[in-house]
Amino acid sequence: MGKQTPHGDGNWQSSKSDSSGASGGDSSKESSRCSTPVLDADRSDRLRDKMRKRIESGDHWFSLEFFPPRTASGAVNLISRFDRMGSGGPLFIDITWHPAGDPGSDKETSSMMIASTAVNYCGLESILHLTCCNQSKEKITAYLNKAKHLGLKNIMALRGDPVGSEWEDEEGGFNYAIDLVKHIRSEFDDYFDICVAGYPTGHPEAETYEADILHLKEKVDAGADFVISQLFFRADTFLKFVNDCRAIGIKCPIVPGVFPVQGYQSLRQLAKLSKLEVPEEITRVIEPIKDNDAAIRNFGIHQAVEMCRLLLDSGIVPGLHFYTLNREVATMEVLRQLGLWNEDPRRPLPWAMSAHPKRKVEDVRPIFWASRPKSYIYRTQDWDDFPNGRWGNSSSPAFGELNDYYLFYLKSKSSKEALLQMWGEELMNEQSVYEIFTCYITAQSNPCGHKVLCLPWNDEPLAPETNLLKDELEKVNRRGVLTINSQPNINGKPSTDPIVGWGPPGGYVFQKAYLEFFTSSENVTALLKILKKYEPRVNYHIVNVNGRNWTNANDMQPNAVTWGIFPGREIVQPTVVDPVSFMYWKDEAFALWIEQWAKLYEDESPSRMIVKYIHDNYFLVNLVDNDFPLENCLWQVIDDMFELLSQWGRENFKTNIQLFNI
Amino acid sequence: MGKQTPHGDGNWQSSKSDSSGASGGDSSKESSRCSTPVLDADRSDRLRDKMRKRIESGDHWFSLEFFPPRTASGAVNLISRFDRMGSGGPLFIDITWHPAGDPGSDKETSSMMIASTAVNYCGLESILHLTCCNQSKEKITAYLNKAKHLGLKNIMALRGDPVGSEWEDEEGGFNYAIDLVKHIRSEFDDYFDICVAGYPTGHPEAETYEADILHLKEKVDAGADFVISQLFFRADTFLKFVNDCRAIGIKCPIVPGVFPVQGYQSLRQLAKLSKLEVPEEITRVIEPIKDNDAAIRNFGIHQAVEMCRLLLDSGIVPGLHFYTLNREVATMEVLRQLGLWNEDPRRPLPWAMSAHPKRKVEDVRPIFWASRPKSYIYRTQDWDDFPNGRWGNSSSPAFGELNDYYLFYLKSKSSKEALLQMWGEELMNEQSVYEIFTCYITAQSNPCGHKVLCLPWNDEPLAPETNLLKDELEKVNRRGVLTINSQPNINGKPSTDPIVGWGPPGGYVFQKAYLEFFTSSENVTALLKILKKYEPRVNYHIVNVNGRNWTNANDMQPNAVTWGIFPGREIVQPTVVDPVSFMYWKDEAFALWIEQWAKLYEDESPSRMIVKYIHDNYFLVNLVDNDFPLENCLWQVIDDMFELLSQWGRENFKTNIQLFNI
Repeated sequence: MGKQTPHGDGNWQSSKSDSSGASGGDSSKESSRCSTPVLDADRSDRLRDKMRKRIESGDHWFSLEFFPPRTASGAVNLISRFDRMGSGGPLFIDITWHPAGDPGSDKETSSMMIASTAVNYCGLESILHLTCCNQSKEKITAYLNKAKHLGLKNIMALRGDPVGSEWEDEEGGFNYAIDLVKHIRSEFDDYFDICVAGYPTGHPEAETYEADILHLKEKVDAGADFVISQLFFRADTFLKFVNDCRAIGIKCPIVPGVFPVQGYQSLRQLAKLSKLEVPEEITRVIEPIKDNDAAIRNFGIHQAVEMCRLLLDSGIVPGLHFYTLNREVATMEVLRQLGLWNEDPRRPLPWAMSAHPKRKVEDVRPIFWASRPKSYIYRTQDWDDFPNGRWGNSSSPAFGELNDYYLFYLKSKSSKEALLQMWGEELMNEQSVYEIFTCYITAQSNPCGHKVLCLPWNDEPLAPETNLLKDELEKVNRRGVLTINSQPNINGKPSTDPIVGWGPPGGYVFQKAYLEFFTSSENVTALLKILKKYEPRVNYHIVNVNGRNWTNANDMQPNAVTWGIFPGREIVQPTVVDPVSFMYWKDEAFALWIEQWAKLYEDESPSRMIVKYIHDNYFLVNLVDNDFPLENCLWQVIDDMFELLSQWGRENFKTNIQLFNI
Repeated sequence: MGKQTPHGDGNWQSSKSDSSGASGGDSSKESSRCSTPVLDADRSDRLRDKMRKRIESGDHWFSLEFFPPRTASGAVNLISRFDRMGSGGPLFIDITWHPAGDPGSDKETSSMMIASTAVNYCGLESILHLTCCNQSKEKITAYLNKAKHLGLKNIMALRGDPVGSEWEDEEGGFNYAIDLVKHIRSEFDDYFDICVAGYPTGHPEAETYEADILHLKEKVDAGADFVISQLFFRADTFLKFVNDCRAIGIKCPIVPGVFPVQGYQSLRQLAKLSKLEVPEEITRVIEPIKDNDAAIRNFGIHQAVEMCRLLLDSGIVPGLHFYTLNREVATMEVLRQLGLWNEDPRRPLPWAMSAHPKRKVEDVRPIFWASRPKSYIYRTQDWDDFPNGRWGNSSSPAFGELNDYYLFYLKSKSSKEALLQMWGEELMNEQSVYEIFTCYITAQSNPCGHKVLCLPWNDEPLAPETNLLKDELEKVNRRGVLTINSQPNINGKPSTDPIVGWGPPGGYVFQKAYLEFFTSSENVTALLKILKKYEPRVNYHIVNVNGRNWTNANDMQPNAVTWGIFPGREIVQPTVVDPVSFMYWKDEAFALWIEQWAKLYEDESPSRMIVKYIHDNYFLVNLVDNDFPLENCLWQVIDDMFELLSQWGRENFKTNIQLFNI
């Protein structure tokens, strides 16, 4: 135990080769020597490298601390908070270890599961806290193995609070955080990035402040990569602490832990827990307004912004760590005022990435899960390799079953009541369903006056990109072409385009027009006839719930529908329409009718029967217009289909459907 | 021995999945279930499958038979004949087994080497003949193993002619072609496609015609995939033969061997060898004109066209096999008159492919070898995997050394004398070299009145695509920017474009502008300064013979410079600029100055010293303009470089080169 392994700077070196030692270019911005180039170099960096690069570039960062929720619905809320707060660009988030909450278990409220969800499903670089007091080595090793298996790469190594009021040393066990640091390095070598806690005013149990920072140096020397400080109330306190640490030779990053006061009670609790005294200049302001939450929060924001400015202006603080207490408003406001909240509309790829290490090279996905990226990640979590560069032959990797539509990270953010209000307390007929789809597209209220903000296939309002197609989508949904996914054709827009852009600047993005919808078998009969006119321009795949299907696509040939060309890189083609995956997707797409919609209603109720009728009888259709430089022809295809149907109506429809043998 | 293994039709099945059995689309055009989709489905088919598909579609084919050359220079000529005749679209070629010519050896004139070159370097589907008489089983197995290792997939199994005048059965040896067929199936299972010979008038040694076709049936039953007939003179002879074969149950393809009479002597020899009697209606025409080669050839063409028309019109002849006697004119003329010669200007990929089975998925190459595809194939022949979809990180696979610039398939088609005429009997100075480059670009005569049809880096006249840049290229070559590779930028031209198009119809092709040239170190000094203005739009890589180099490209990031978007497919990006491969290419590019040019002159001669000076002091430069939708800026870069140089000239050049430390 305690074997010290090399880590930190040793891992970073420029891969720039200039065989003569002469230098003319400055091309060594990226260091990752991965098997295939990835679009976003950061994806392959570990946290300590990202931190080092930000320090070198002088680009201040922020990070966010959360604690695990108590209830399942709390977990759902926290996950959507991750999504929202993740959009501001934190360098990482961290999840506290909650010994009372079965923290290493598979429960949806456990520290382990919350951290795993943040990494895997929200794509956030995350640190899992781990406390070691009263734990056996075996137990700790098991936790670490589990964390590693789940894709977690960073541990905050803590002692934790004693069970009783007094601490008792355990022979051969973990008595201090340093024991845990040594254990991690001994058992897992350089796998984890390790963070340790620093106490700007000294640990409450430490003999002296000086003894405490010497102890911090020992933790760093034992293998910790950086330090996050406990909360404090004055910038001076932290700046002195950093200077004292540097003076005794602590060289790693030391990040201040910032706590914006958000309420009277939470401040008192936290101060008590941290054994810190709230300075008089704060209590003096707060005490008189202690019943006015808004006023306290405003003061907290103001006070935090002032302190953070002092810290950043000092030149020795590279980033800020926020104790959010799982709340959004105050922290976001502080970050906005500091100019650190960076809602960059540019996406590295068109879809939401996972931060699991084995998915680092992933840069191709089928388009079908565009609005359900967490479901896609879940159903492919057991894959050994992820498509990179091309999708290839997808017949080998199988998609996992999606039986549990209630996995907390897949759950709708809306309650059953809200869903019933949006999708109708009572459906009259298929047209009622058409109307809900239409209201979702137009963002207008349904007949009962409720806005339809989501559908079973789309838990978010319409994407800005889809808005480009709004008028056409509204028209076809009204007529029973129930669209669940679409994209316009794009012939070389700049990669910085605010609506359809993605990837690094200086590139060009392209798309083939795509349309996916449910529609009746009568419509499909006409559609198949119409589609013959559009060969080979339009690729189609049409399938019902039983798997009866038609396609003009080759089984083994995915169709790239989104791609980008960037300076000095290979082509990136992040989304494909793949006939094999479509057959897996259709199971999910059809099941959502029942699981998320039909089951809102009583068994045997007319509303339920209407949704079930659609599930049983409609077809799921996808269409790709391959001729991306021309005007999207898919709307014409739909128009032609309705035109043919009305012609048939005139000529006697029944004769015709017999001909087409449906 | 004689174990019969399944083959033939068993391997072909539609991979179309329609789980309900219903059918609406016709998507099963391609059957190859390969690990990643290839652009050209035919590339992954074996010969018997290609043949079957052509029979099903009614699309007549032709094939060409050659014999191995006697001399090394004959081999060079034959290889360029393969390139020329390959452009007409033969389904396959075959190479006879020449027992007297050490047929299985590594000699450049051996049957084995010629067939290997046809497959590997000319990209032609090829059949290697193999005769078994007087051979041990071990020897035959060794030949077959060697053929397999070289990428040959098809064997024409023959008995061969006896050593003496009379045949003697050998105990336990190969006495008949059927023994060889059985041996191949027994030892190599279904690996090879096997062809056997059929005798339209019966084998000369057969007891009867009927006994001979029964023997043919045995050969087919033993595992042969198709039959090629011996030559004959009347369509009726062959049609009767096919009917007789069908009557006794021979079901595989039977292809007529067509021999266009090309000369009096060759006809007599062949007739004697085949023990065939030349029909009276032919001798009657030929005898009177036997000294007039042109007249005989014209008659031969006429007669062959007539006979082939009868064969094809019969409806039972799917394709024609030609005994070319290694000559081009007559066969090509017959094929042209029949409408079978199909010089399709469309290329499946922008570069010349190899037909080696392990290169079937290959669809990405560095642009550097664009004019030396055979050298590229040679230097990568030992790779286990070939880039497919993306180039990726090229640091792992090493390029083979290219020490031997006289490998027969790499040799220039021109003689030393012709090269001296083109490149100058005597060079005066560096400007003399600039002039040669300029004449090559303009296709004009050099000062001695000779057209410059090739350069050491380009064995062919300028590609039509390069012609698009002709004026600009001329200008810069005249000034000492010695271009050896270039392409214009293309922003989405149809894949059927006659000049820049490639791949299947219905697609769009794109290119980034590329320019590669040798130039003096003075020019490079100015160029490096100019290039700073063009960051990040232009990627560059500059290197001298010693490897001193500058680049602004990331080591691990190849830059895709040619790509295509096709209906229902993933993106194809056949050419990249890869900084790692460039360092291998520069060795070859610099060596060609010495090996192909300097060595034309006497040691220590001024001409040789001038070429050697360039080799020692010039830099090889590649430039990519990433902004493909805009006007190519690379000419402006060169202009700016010359402008800066002339400015420096005015300001005193010497001060400046010191500043730039070259």
